[in-house]
Amino acid sequence: MSVSAATVSSMSTVQMEDLSKIQLVVLAFLMLVGGEVFTSLLDLQVMKSKLDREKNKSSSDGESQDLKSRSIRHMCYVILAYLLLIHTIGSTSILVYLSVVSSVRGTLKKKGAHELLFFSVFVIISSFANGGFIPLNENMAAFKNNSGLLLLIVPQILAGNVFFPPFLRLAIWASKRALGREEESNYLLENSSGVRLHHLLSKHCSMLLAVTAGGLIVVLMVIFCGMEWDSEALRGMNPYQKIVGGLFQSVNLRHAGESIVDISVLSPVLLVLFVFVMFLPPYTTFIPIQYQDRSSCGGLSDQRGNEKQVLQNLIFSQITYLTIFVMLICITEREKINQDPLNFNVLNIVIEVVSAYGNIGFSTGYSCKRQLRPDATCVDKWYGFAGKWSNKGKLILIVVMYFGRLKKFSMSGGKAWKLAS
Amino acid sequence: MSVSAATVSSMSTVQMEDLSKIQLVVLAFLMLVGGEVFTSLLDLQVMKSKLDREKNKSSSDGESQDLKSRSIRHMCYVILAYLLLIHTIGSTSILVYLSVVSSVRGTLKKKGAHELLFFSVFVIISSFANGGFIPLNENMAAFKNNSGLLLLIVPQILAGNVFFPPFLRLAIWASKRALGREEESNYLLENSSGVRLHHLLSKHCSMLLAVTAGGLIVVLMVIFCGMEWDSEALRGMNPYQKIVGGLFQSVNLRHAGESIVDISVLSPVLLVLFVFVMFLPPYTTFIPIQYQDRSSCGGLSDQRGNEKQVLQNLIFSQITYLTIFVMLICITEREKINQDPLNFNVLNIVIEVVSAYGNIGFSTGYSCKRQLRPDATCVDKWYGFAGKWSNKGKLILIVVMYFGRLKKFSMSGGKAWKLAS
Repeated sequence: MSVSAATVSSMSTVQMEDLSKIQLVVLAFLMLVGGEVFTSLLDLQVMKSKLDREKNKSSSDGESQDLKSRSIRHMCYVILAYLLLIHTIGSTSILVYLSVVSSVRGTLKKKGAHELLFFSVFVIISSFANGGFIPLNENMAAFKNNSGLLLLIVPQILAGNVFFPPFLRLAIWASKRALGREEESNYLLENSSGVRLHHLLSKHCSMLLAVTAGGLIVVLMVIFCGMEWDSEALRGMNPYQKIVGGLFQSVNLRHAGESIVDISVLSPVLLVLFVFVMFLPPYTTFIPIQYQDRSSCGGLSDQRGNEKQVLQNLIFSQITYLTIFVMLICITEREKINQDPLNFNVLNIVIEVVSAYGNIGFSTGYSCKRQLRPDATCVDKWYGFAGKWSNKGKLILIVVMYFGRLKKFSMSGGKAWKLAS
Repeated sequence: MSVSAATVSSMSTVQMEDLSKIQLVVLAFLMLVGGEVFTSLLDLQVMKSKLDREKNKSSSDGESQDLKSRSIRHMCYVILAYLLLIHTIGSTSILVYLSVVSSVRGTLKKKGAHELLFFSVFVIISSFANGGFIPLNENMAAFKNNSGLLLLIVPQILAGNVFFPPFLRLAIWASKRALGREEESNYLLENSSGVRLHHLLSKHCSMLLAVTAGGLIVVLMVIFCGMEWDSEALRGMNPYQKIVGGLFQSVNLRHAGESIVDISVLSPVLLVLFVFVMFLPPYTTFIPIQYQDRSSCGGLSDQRGNEKQVLQNLIFSQITYLTIFVMLICITEREKINQDPLNFNVLNIVIEVVSAYGNIGFSTGYSCKRQLRPDATCVDKWYGFAGKWSNKGKLILIVVMYFGRLKKFSMSGGKAWKLAS
């Protein structure tokens, strides 16, 4: 059965266009103050008032306490400026795009000029806060051919999420150059672990984070385009639009959730990959083992003293391999998954793979009764589900069984990856 | 659509009754020599010959080397006796059961007396080696009402798998009492980490392993019976048979893979749980944090120096929570999963849960076109898949979103669990 549905939906349980203007304003406000960047301002305020209390109590070491307090105040201003700048530039650029490009005005033609401004501001707030709401029922699907618009939104999403730590360092550095607040800026840039803000990472860690996040986006984009290039989901788009669409979709997978395609018609391979990537916390970093030292990236070093161990963690690596195996089998059996979705559902494939990995041997089997298009020649056989797979699929399953049998040799893998939220 | 199939299958891609006697003998031999217990004999042989070579090279410290060498030889004999004893007692008891109980003879009525012996030996070899093969097409389904037979097989499976370490210690202790090999036995019992055999654990660790494995089996049995008590899978069985069947199925989940029910008609809740449990390595142990010290259970302490870290591992715990959430939603939406399997498939539920956990917002939506029984009143809506869930399901999803948002506070969970293969 070829399944097609026109549902492109963020995780809301109401239709966005059913909301009144007031409700949308409240929603935008909640997204604004609930975003990671805005809440970090609150963290800093709490930190600063705590510091000030301590300073009043004990006047010893007052010099360095005072510098720290001033630096934190300085960082508040920097973040506030960062917020204002991003929102202003973002909204303006989108408003200009909507006003200038005629194909978009078609989509929003019912709306007047001040409606366009509202739309632009809402989209930017939602994207920057990674809220994922768009005041249109079909989310971003209406704009899937407006690659320019998508390219304007991508940096907003990244600036509010995985690229916030490197951008924050950049902003502090810029404030040093522009405003001359050298003492505070240097303190912030050099004492990233002393200032216990979750988002302020060392130069080294910020770079690793940016490289990891960028690399992951590129990998996702390549797989997305590779799997969906000629599919229903990207029909009617030219190659440039497909690539930009793949980029947009990959960026949104972490963690904004805006979408230009109907997720439910994507191939199961991609859905399995989506589950895996969505599971990764935002500040997942790849750190080559030779560069690993006692100080950990992506968090507060004393609260998170266990992160070194997480690097050497077995589960991540094992689960990564299993995910890859499931994806490969979704590829080899993709036609049957499409034709015979009740037998070839992803849960059954996962059961077969994990069962093989654990050397268990459970299988859901294959039932002719479950075929959606009954095949008169189908005979129920007394063997496992894998018996109905293609030879390539069976070969992969054999590899999984050996891999599972030899798992004591691969269990220490995955050391170079660090997960942090 | 109520899906029913008569396929109860181990992970073979041929029908077992199609195999000739010769093929079955070869299969039994391969299972025998490939089982964990038998291969541990090979490990010991390699260990011993290495020790002997070292002893010849340097005669210093010869006393303790000699004791170690003798102890390893002693352990070889103990394991060999253990193997012979289990297989002899097991095969005999099953043969007696098959000969005496009339309802079983009906199942195997075509077979003669020496066929019954062959069947008994094959079942015991397969169960002890956790091979999961039974020389009947329908695996153990024919015996689902023969609770006595199932209860005879359960200890064989455990003796060859999760209970091997405690039983091995017991056997060594018994050899000390019976044969008076006090020196070697004491060496083995007190230097479990010195003798680098994967299966020889300290007394403390063996007990923890037995308690963990036993507890997990009880929990699985309770959930299995709770979910399937009145289901199609256990139809025609009395309460005693259902409980024994649940026990048999739970024991087989780690890792034998024999089955008395059709896995594919079990509820998705159980299937998700099965995936999770099958993923656990055999020697998974729960160690209360206050009892944790530098010496780790379930492995060789120097090869496995990282296992302490694994205890403090975040992923296990996070994945456990997510599995529980998915299972809960499979429970609240169980009727829709049954009625509308293309929309309510477990992959879509997993996507919704992980998307909520990661605060992404992707959703597969709901499509009226995918309904197997088209509902004339169904209208496609522009909202997420969760919009079609019951209120209980939505409530759980809200909890998942908060849980995901606050994950930095729960990431250090799961410390008391240790995974080891």
